[in-house]
Amino acid sequence: MSDRVPRANAASPAKSAGSRRKVHVSDPGSPTIRVPFTEVTLGAGLGNGVSPADLSVRLYDTSGPGSDPQEGLPPLRRPWITGRGDVEEYDGRPVSVRDDGRAVARKSAEDTRAGAGAGAGAGAGAGAGSGAGLSRWPAPGRRPLRARRAGAGGRRPVTQLHYARAGMITEEMRFAALREGVQPEIVREELAAGRAILPANVNHPESEPMVIGRRFLVKVNANIGNSSVTSSIANEVEKLSWATRWGADTVMDLSTGPAIHTTREWIIRNSPVPIGTVPIYQALEKAGGRPENLSWELYRDTLIEQAEQGVDYVTVHAGVLLRYVPLTAERVTGIVSRGGSIMAAWCLAHHEENFLYTHFEDLCEIMADYDMAFSLGDGLRPGSVADANDEAQFAELRTLGELTEVAWRHDVQVMIEGPGHVPLHKIAENVTLQQEVCHEAPFYTLGPLTIDVAPGYDHITSAIGAAVIGMHGTAMLCYVTPKEHLGLPDRDDVKQGMIAYKIAAHAADLAKGHPGAQRWDDALSKARFEFRWEDQFNLAIDPETARSYHDETLPAAPAKTAHFCSMCGPKFCSMRISHELREYAASRGIPVRAAVGDGMREKAAEFLEAGASVYVDPATTSTRREHPWVTTPEAPDA
Amino acid sequence: MSDRVPRANAASPAKSAGSRRKVHVSDPGSPTIRVPFTEVTLGAGLGNGVSPADLSVRLYDTSGPGSDPQEGLPPLRRPWITGRGDVEEYDGRPVSVRDDGRAVARKSAEDTRAGAGAGAGAGAGAGAGSGAGLSRWPAPGRRPLRARRAGAGGRRPVTQLHYARAGMITEEMRFAALREGVQPEIVREELAAGRAILPANVNHPESEPMVIGRRFLVKVNANIGNSSVTSSIANEVEKLSWATRWGADTVMDLSTGPAIHTTREWIIRNSPVPIGTVPIYQALEKAGGRPENLSWELYRDTLIEQAEQGVDYVTVHAGVLLRYVPLTAERVTGIVSRGGSIMAAWCLAHHEENFLYTHFEDLCEIMADYDMAFSLGDGLRPGSVADANDEAQFAELRTLGELTEVAWRHDVQVMIEGPGHVPLHKIAENVTLQQEVCHEAPFYTLGPLTIDVAPGYDHITSAIGAAVIGMHGTAMLCYVTPKEHLGLPDRDDVKQGMIAYKIAAHAADLAKGHPGAQRWDDALSKARFEFRWEDQFNLAIDPETARSYHDETLPAAPAKTAHFCSMCGPKFCSMRISHELREYAASRGIPVRAAVGDGMREKAAEFLEAGASVYVDPATTSTRREHPWVTTPEAPDA
Repeated sequence: MSDRVPRANAASPAKSAGSRRKVHVSDPGSPTIRVPFTEVTLGAGLGNGVSPADLSVRLYDTSGPGSDPQEGLPPLRRPWITGRGDVEEYDGRPVSVRDDGRAVARKSAEDTRAGAGAGAGAGAGAGAGSGAGLSRWPAPGRRPLRARRAGAGGRRPVTQLHYARAGMITEEMRFAALREGVQPEIVREELAAGRAILPANVNHPESEPMVIGRRFLVKVNANIGNSSVTSSIANEVEKLSWATRWGADTVMDLSTGPAIHTTREWIIRNSPVPIGTVPIYQALEKAGGRPENLSWELYRDTLIEQAEQGVDYVTVHAGVLLRYVPLTAERVTGIVSRGGSIMAAWCLAHHEENFLYTHFEDLCEIMADYDMAFSLGDGLRPGSVADANDEAQFAELRTLGELTEVAWRHDVQVMIEGPGHVPLHKIAENVTLQQEVCHEAPFYTLGPLTIDVAPGYDHITSAIGAAVIGMHGTAMLCYVTPKEHLGLPDRDDVKQGMIAYKIAAHAADLAKGHPGAQRWDDALSKARFEFRWEDQFNLAIDPETARSYHDETLPAAPAKTAHFCSMCGPKFCSMRISHELREYAASRGIPVRAAVGDGMREKAAEFLEAGASVYVDPATTSTRREHPWVTTPEAPDA
Repeated sequence: MSDRVPRANAASPAKSAGSRRKVHVSDPGSPTIRVPFTEVTLGAGLGNGVSPADLSVRLYDTSGPGSDPQEGLPPLRRPWITGRGDVEEYDGRPVSVRDDGRAVARKSAEDTRAGAGAGAGAGAGAGAGSGAGLSRWPAPGRRPLRARRAGAGGRRPVTQLHYARAGMITEEMRFAALREGVQPEIVREELAAGRAILPANVNHPESEPMVIGRRFLVKVNANIGNSSVTSSIANEVEKLSWATRWGADTVMDLSTGPAIHTTREWIIRNSPVPIGTVPIYQALEKAGGRPENLSWELYRDTLIEQAEQGVDYVTVHAGVLLRYVPLTAERVTGIVSRGGSIMAAWCLAHHEENFLYTHFEDLCEIMADYDMAFSLGDGLRPGSVADANDEAQFAELRTLGELTEVAWRHDVQVMIEGPGHVPLHKIAENVTLQQEVCHEAPFYTLGPLTIDVAPGYDHITSAIGAAVIGMHGTAMLCYVTPKEHLGLPDRDDVKQGMIAYKIAAHAADLAKGHPGAQRWDDALSKARFEFRWEDQFNLAIDPETARSYHDETLPAAPAKTAHFCSMCGPKFCSMRISHELREYAASRGIPVRAAVGDGMREKAAEFLEAGASVYVDPATTSTRREHPWVTTPEAPDA
């Protein structure tokens, strides 16, 4: 792990070859709001007559300012949060070794018996993390914030939904609007209507605000996290930075293994993007790994623990009702969601309704105190093509719709999780039904995987489904890595998963006609057409890979300015003819538009409309005189 | 390059772990028809009560019998072809060094001057190939076949379309039908209607018949071929075998570089799948690389040369009409098809209509003599999102529809090539319009790429488009490799492209409801659910990668039978609860279906219909007595 998290693909600007670097754009109305972008300045080979607006392209940038993992990121949002005057600092819940899971608690007990004195008790972070020098969060003095208890009007929700409904445009909304290229009022409106969320726990001031909703750019979440089998804290922090470098809009820490609490602390303190979790995983650890030992009290304690750390949204499987469990019995793959199966096990063991459902209003009160958003989990999502869109799945979805309304009554932000495994022709129905029964709350789907038979390539099987479900209105896509179903993702898997999903998200943005989305494609395609290789690389989702693939076949530096590629070689490049056409027009001093102007278009249309038969006399279609730009092209043989 | 082309993923059958191997299934009516399949026999961990039909899964197999490249494949179809009594052997066109391109001709001339005597002249295959020992096709004695000139009724087309229209079910149709799992009559009907093609040049008897049409499985083509910049004959033959191993249904040889003729000979003689080409590439070589020097005579000579070698289908850019060229002038990326730009250059240079269009009937006569199929090229396909579905593209498509009818009058098989770069929301229109104006001739599309900004990952950007266009009815997908736009694909790129496209094709098959397609997914998902790891691997599109990814995290052999994976670890696996439910039912001697039978379903439905509010009393939802299968699950903590 490097000392410094690298900055976003910042290529060193070379000669006249253009550059790719991070810039910050200030909100003219609020100069403290400085929004990061990746700016690609176009360079070599650009023709004359290019308007300044076409000389650079700004891309959405999730990579954050870069941090020393030991120090964490600066608390960007702190003044905005405290400035609203509705939060208070307090001591927070005491942290114990139990918060780090059974393995750590066991180790701590052994150490104590051995006289090593690995202290537990108050202060964030307990021992036994596996990364060298990363076991304990080095700044344990942090006191959490929550909604102020005293004061006029009593305790109020400190959620972005609450502010939006009150007509207030927060700094967070302005920041997100500038990132999206829309007016802040649009962000406020969408939040107020519940059609978007802005995950922003008051205890995660390090995050750069972003918005999730179908009127905005489609977002991508990356899952990281250790399990009892593998991984370490250092790895997870590196995966976080690596994921945001490649475009992760949010990151979920799904750790189940040792040092859960401490791992999460390191992740949040270093995260420029909202962090999501599934608290039931940690609660299960506290319950000794036995679902039947879970309780509302244990869960509540865990939720507050995570709220104080700064988790921005939590997956809550409150829709897995006892009566839905039998609906899964005849499925090909039963229940495949861990959270779903934990709650189903609890329900069956106790013969009682899901405590997350029965305590949902209590949950809402906690969420409102910190501005944690709900990500209502689809515990009964299909785990195979055969189980897609079945009764169990849609029964739970309807319950999530019901819970959405409850959360909204508490001014708590909500998004809805979706499947899973769904064949292409059943995807649209998922969005339509979700939007209907969940009152247009944002949809957040895992893929879906469109086929079951490609383990090792599920980033691709699911990118297909993700692009299509995004086109239909899904607001955020949870990535799937090549290791899905097979193992835990490593660094390269995280990158492969992220890139497949940035592709899916952008494909959806184009299909939805998101304003400005196509500008990026047009800039790259123009660069491609004009053989501006460096510009192509700098504009690419993954500049390094594009450059290295080009180098494999044509490694020499001159090839970077060559007017051909290795596909066809220098002898005959397919794009030359168009250039020659344009050059001819230019040499006559007429714009191409005029050269192929109305007269010619009409001519072509005439022919089409006449339904010209195959064997029109070539003489009649000769256009020697009509086409002023016709000339013998220069021999393309180099 | 290995001496023997490897057989299709044939894993050595291990213990009780099931197996994956090639089998041949004979047509009961025609025992000479032996159709290859990859048969996966399921093994370890399979529960009792499994019906024999569920014990194995047969997958479509394109890998061929395996060949020694020096000897080629056995001429499987030869007796069927000659048995119809409508072909004759003849001397064929004399092959000269010029057929191998300028570089070879130059080298040969130099060698002659130097007294080395590299002979040219008759017999297939001329020198200067770059692979060691692979420069000359070792069996030059082959005499080509063509439609018989003499005899009653005169010369007749020897095409599968001709036979199908005459009501004849050929061995080729039977073979293809058995592969698809449909009745031969369906294949005949679809061919007769022009809705499908069965590419089967009488001079490529080595090929295993297959059918391309929207009622059948979606097919995938892999492009290989050298260019003047890189690659060798040995590489190309290896890429061919490698591509068919990973599922290529057809392969296009797009060579433009040295030894075009000889490279093609090696490829065809070793190919178990139909081979496609773009003859204009070779014709351009013969024209010294100067489009203006092309002529109908040069093209005709090249087409016959390739027909005699056994090319099964050819891309012909006969729809690039002179009057359409100006329509591309204002595009972001002009003309991006090589063939399209060559023909556009010719048209502009000569101020005449495309000779492929004016000589289309002559072309048809040649095609009918050998049963070469047309793949009518989209020379004006969009090369960027910005240019998708524009006037130039659709004008050409209408002309291709017109040419389709001409070809059909000659009993020549036709498919239509499609784009290219198309954003998701514009894909359906491509298929709808193509099916309408081309009278339901099969559509064969390159991707389409759904975004422009991911060079290095265009196998993914285009697999998304390919799956969607396949769902809408495209019959064959031309793969795109990660190197698209950047360089020539190597061995691994071919594999990555193939797998992305097999995924897209299967996603489309599921979405179209192809009979039997889902059986594969269900078998794999059941194996996954029952922790039959070896069965999962054997059923995977890429067993090796799936196995190796699993091994990375859990390398020990016992992990292959473990009832958990590294995702959640042994402590709590999400799929256990469903198994416990089933086991409970089994222990009571009641089928799961009965345990969750009508009574319970009604109960669940009642609750749903009652629109139960969030806070129903948990007591009323308790099902202690109503759910006979409820039991406290065993503690899952291992």
